[in-house]
Amino acid sequence: MPAYATNMRLKFPILALVLEAVTIVLYALFVVYDTGDDHGHGAHHGEENKTHSSSPMTLYPMFQDVHVMIFIGFGFLMTFLKRYGFSSVGINLLLAAFGLQWGLLFQNIFHMHDWKIKVSIDRMINADFSTATVLISFGAVLGKTSPVQLLIMTLLEITTFCINEFLVVEKLGVSDVGASMTIHAFGAYFGLAVARVLYRPGLRNGHENEGSVYHSDLFAMIGTVYLWMFWPSFNSAIAAPGDEQLRAVVNTYFSLAACALAAYATSSLVEKKGKLDMVHIQNATLAGGVAVGTCADMDIQPFGAMLIGTVAGIISTVGFKFLTPVLASKLGIQDTCGVHNLHGMPGILGGLAGIVAAALNKKEGVSAIYQAAGLASSLGFALVGGLITGLIMKIPFLGQPPDQNCYDDSIFWEVPEEEEETEERLTHGDYSKNKTEA
Amino acid sequence: MPAYATNMRLKFPILALVLEAVTIVLYALFVVYDTGDDHGHGAHHGEENKTHSSSPMTLYPMFQDVHVMIFIGFGFLMTFLKRYGFSSVGINLLLAAFGLQWGLLFQNIFHMHDWKIKVSIDRMINADFSTATVLISFGAVLGKTSPVQLLIMTLLEITTFCINEFLVVEKLGVSDVGASMTIHAFGAYFGLAVARVLYRPGLRNGHENEGSVYHSDLFAMIGTVYLWMFWPSFNSAIAAPGDEQLRAVVNTYFSLAACALAAYATSSLVEKKGKLDMVHIQNATLAGGVAVGTCADMDIQPFGAMLIGTVAGIISTVGFKFLTPVLASKLGIQDTCGVHNLHGMPGILGGLAGIVAAALNKKEGVSAIYQAAGLASSLGFALVGGLITGLIMKIPFLGQPPDQNCYDDSIFWEVPEEEEETEERLTHGDYSKNKTEA
Amino acid sequence: MPAYATNMRLKFPILALVLEAVTIVLYALFVVYDTGDDHGHGAHHGEENKTHSSSPMTLYPMFQDVHVMIFIGFGFLMTFLKRYGFSSVGINLLLAAFGLQWGLLFQNIFHMHDWKIKVSIDRMINADFSTATVLISFGAVLGKTSPVQLLIMTLLEITTFCINEFLVVEKLGVSDVGASMTIHAFGAYFGLAVARVLYRPGLRNGHENEGSVYHSDLFAMIGTVYLWMFWPSFNSAIAAPGDEQLRAVVNTYFSLAACALAAYATSSLVEKKGKLDMVHIQNATLAGGVAVGTCADMDIQPFGAMLIGTVAGIISTVGFKFLTPVLASKLGIQDTCGVHNLHGMPGILGGLAGIVAAALNKKEGVSAIYQAAGLASSLGFALVGGLITGLIMKIPFLGQPPDQNCYDDSIFWEVPEEEEETEERLTHGDYSKNKTEA
Repeated sequence: MPAYATNMRLKFPILALVLEAVTIVLYALFVVYDTGDDHGHGAHHGEENKTHSSSPMTLYPMFQDVHVMIFIGFGFLMTFLKRYGFSSVGINLLLAAFGLQWGLLFQNIFHMHDWKIKVSIDRMINADFSTATVLISFGAVLGKTSPVQLLIMTLLEITTFCINEFLVVEKLGVSDVGASMTIHAFGAYFGLAVARVLYRPGLRNGHENEGSVYHSDLFAMIGTVYLWMFWPSFNSAIAAPGDEQLRAVVNTYFSLAACALAAYATSSLVEKKGKLDMVHIQNATLAGGVAVGTCADMDIQPFGAMLIGTVAGIISTVGFKFLTPVLASKLGIQDTCGVHNLHGMPGILGGLAGIVAAALNKKEGVSAIYQAAGLASSLGFALVGGLITGLIMKIPFLGQPPDQNCYDDSIFWEVPEEEEETEERLTHGDYSKNKTEA
Repeated sequence: MPAYATNMRLKFPILALVLEAVTIVLYALFVVYDTGDDHGHGAHHGEENKTHSSSPMTLYPMFQDVHVMIFIGFGFLMTFLKRYGFSSVGINLLLAAFGLQWGLLFQNIFHMHDWKIKVSIDRMINADFSTATVLISFGAVLGKTSPVQLLIMTLLEITTFCINEFLVVEKLGVSDVGASMTIHAFGAYFGLAVARVLYRPGLRNGHENEGSVYHSDLFAMIGTVYLWMFWPSFNSAIAAPGDEQLRAVVNTYFSLAACALAAYATSSLVEKKGKLDMVHIQNATLAGGVAVGTCADMDIQPFGAMLIGTVAGIISTVGFKFLTPVLASKLGIQDTCGVHNLHGMPGILGGLAGIVAAALNKKEGVSAIYQAAGLASSLGFALVGGLITGLIMKIPFLGQPPDQNCYDDSIFWEVPEEEEETEERLTHGDYSKNKTEA
Repeated sequence: MPAYATNMRLKFPILALVLEAVTIVLYALFVVYDTGDDHGHGAHHGEENKTHSSSPMTLYPMFQDVHVMIFIGFGFLMTFLKRYGFSSVGINLLLAAFGLQWGLLFQNIFHMHDWKIKVSIDRMINADFSTATVLISFGAVLGKTSPVQLLIMTLLEITTFCINEFLVVEKLGVSDVGASMTIHAFGAYFGLAVARVLYRPGLRNGHENEGSVYHSDLFAMIGTVYLWMFWPSFNSAIAAPGDEQLRAVVNTYFSLAACALAAYATSSLVEKKGKLDMVHIQNATLAGGVAVGTCADMDIQPFGAMLIGTVAGIISTVGFKFLTPVLASKLGIQDTCGVHNLHGMPGILGGLAGIVAAALNKKEGVSAIYQAAGLASSLGFALVGGLITGLIMKIPFLGQPPDQNCYDDSIFWEVPEEEEETEERLTHGDYSKNKTEA
């Protein structure tokens, strides 16, 4: 691929501005404030409206927690690569900023009254949620795609997500309060399908930049810890107010705590010298939040949540150690962040736990059969949607970086001169030294 | 200027302790808890009291969001300089910690009952707000001023801010819920006026340290993303409870989302190779929060907010690329962080949008003429206050660093030995190596 | 000590998994959701139940603030060491994740109804609180202990903490809303006692790695600023709702603001060249939050809180400068993070302030004598508990690192190759260069 194809100067601004312009026109036509005229009469609006309460701001602190997870959590989690931090945080912000606008439109297109979508805090939460699918998939193709490709993926993935979510949650009445199936499994397998289509044989033996440095691993821990802390908000934000919401918080809190112990233990166990591996700690400690998602508002009791979290922490760590290399070498799926281990398998585990919990009547009105259908639908839409999206993203004109420029910010970003060079000059106090001499 | 003048050992501690002592005496005389005796009767207290509700803690989550913006947001946003991170986060904390004490006093001096100022959460929010003006101005003079100069600036700027705010909001009844005019434009032009007075011809050709390194840009993104996420809280914290507050949240949410797309697109467009520039992403993505401030609680509808955000993102990016160099070379205004592009022009844009919205009756009881007067007053107080403050800060005794020590923490901070030196030893595992040999 | 003793491969996973398994069994037996059946009848449950209100989620935003303090605040505060960031954030997460599960059990063992502990948000807050004691003690032994030793310390310290808290708060009715005595002084002196037992003569002359680098100090400031911002939540989370809770917020807000000024002033004053020292700024700015803890919900007025904060900022900074070296050289207490200065002395100051405030009747029903007894009990349990725990931790089998591997992540973590090496290659664009040649 000729290098100039990665110059974004025209295609990226045009695409971004056209998408934004179209979005603004659609908002001008269809989106208004939720003036609260129909508060309390929203039962026919679907799940999110159950959370309506007397004040329109009740859920605002929860919204901000979720907001932090999306923009700090996902963004910094991916900064672990030594030379891809600008893209991780920066493109994460770009995709989520566009995604939330698009998500709010498409999630509510089936719920319009008088052709109007009414924006409330719970719909903003759902809009943020919809972007999570894209950010998970972004992790699978991190370092190997252009901003243009990723904006297209955002558009297509959120649209697909909204269709699946509507079918699963609205039509089938599947319970998935923390979205193990509709967001985590969906986002992971969508991304893996895209990664399969974009397979790069040239990266079979790894890449110079596909690793961390000391400080990039610490930046990534900012993302990890924020996701870990605020996951109870993610899993409870759209739960029914009162005891169910409390249950979702409590279950997620304990699932994550148990998961952390399991991930640390397993990480040490699978390494010859018993050392902890940052990749496991950054990711597998979070698997408990994913896996308890579907059951979070069910009556599984704290110890049930802890069991789910423990299993999730173990399979996620084992996945990073043993499965990711196999996926790359045998199936041609190069999963940069290992989203299969953090969102894929734990998402499926969450869906399975939901089926079992439904069969055990842990939540009223929930059916094991429909839960299973919800899981199948999410996986099906993810794989088909991801394959088609991957094929579209493969069009050469979209600026996909060549192999040697993967995992490297400098292909799409202005990157400052090297630190060591500067530091050397500072160390020697030689301010007169000309840059070209250094 | 002789080097010893920058030794802070006596002047800084004395100034800081005297300011704190005076503040404590004034608090002992005038400041008490808001025991809630007059809850619900506060209409004559001015804007902030409209937000009082049955529980004294209702606004506390909003307060904490604003608190994070002030201390993490502003603090880390300025860490982009390669060798000025300690000062950025550290002096930011110092100035805001003093500023909030001073701001709470002076903002409420006209609202005392029985000579008492009653502290409630909404007054703490306003106290935090008052410090934002100083932190914006700090950005204009970042790297070129001493802690003593900056404490003096804090004292004078907050005092000036309180007078202007009282006139504009209380006396003229101007609507400025997100403070585009009274905080952002005010803080920016105050800082630019100070920067003009402190003009350094010796820095015309730039400075070795006036740039970023890879990791300093990532630290700055922590600030950016927190400001971006919590800006809806900034713009809605003192809005009237209920639908107006929701409106302020929704408008800011969408303005920022649209602004992000516009800033990314413009950043790529103005650079020959189409690459994104971290300076633009760190700053211009936030201009939508500034620009929608005045109108945030008005009935401009989501698409109106998105239009404002889009325009703000474009002019801010263009300002960084083309206007900042001109301001420095032609007008002698060396604006380190480009606050003119993030707070100045978007603040004026916000004021103008407010005038238009008022003319279109987008908020009851708001007059376009008075809105215009509020903008003019804010700019006038900023420029005159900034010029006078700059002249006072120019007194040599105050420890202003010489040109060659600008943008360098080590003039006012103990700075650890260089990282590379340490790493070298670690790499070679040579623990016996004596430091003096290295 | 032979090197292989630090291989954690079996002992660490076994200990972690056994602890988690035992915990899950205990939860299965004793822990259920708080279904709210007895809301409003909780007066006999002790302090934490006073905060129960109509919605089970009222305290959730406060909980999340405390959660951030525990996991981001404490975790990143300790990343100041140049080569111990993985352990600081990572082991902090591990200990707190286990500690909160254990703390929730033991704090409520005396409050069971029908042999059940009911989990609510205020109990989750208290569980998080209990982990703070361990994280404080962790600071005293940072860099010199293994994960196995630290898990054992967590188990023993939280158990001791729960007994002391039960005696002091429940039995004696001592008022300690921000836990100056029961958490801060307790955690500090417990940790110092452990550090005394684990004294290492080999580190008398310091250690190569016992210092910071530029960016590690910035990471630590993330911890500092989050602790500083959210401390009002820490001190008010379990206060009685309404005016007392507001008082706790207001007092902490002002105490910290005044403390910051005092710490900056003192830091500059005690250094020959008047420069600020990052160690002081990272820690002593927080002493005001510790010291105002006991009095936080008392009627000491804002200026009283500011006086406490000022004194705390001064003694904490002076402690770092003059006392810490003496403790190490004369008493054999090597206090890595200086927790004596941040939590120990300010905690005692807080206890003393509480005695004075009680004597002055600043809170109804609180007795100066019992306050003094509470302080004495906390110190006694801490010292005795810490000594015994230290002796147990000294068992060689537990993987304590040898002197030369102290303060070094690489003994327990996989650590990536050095940054400079990578950067060199990137600078020269030499992607073909083999790693072994570099």
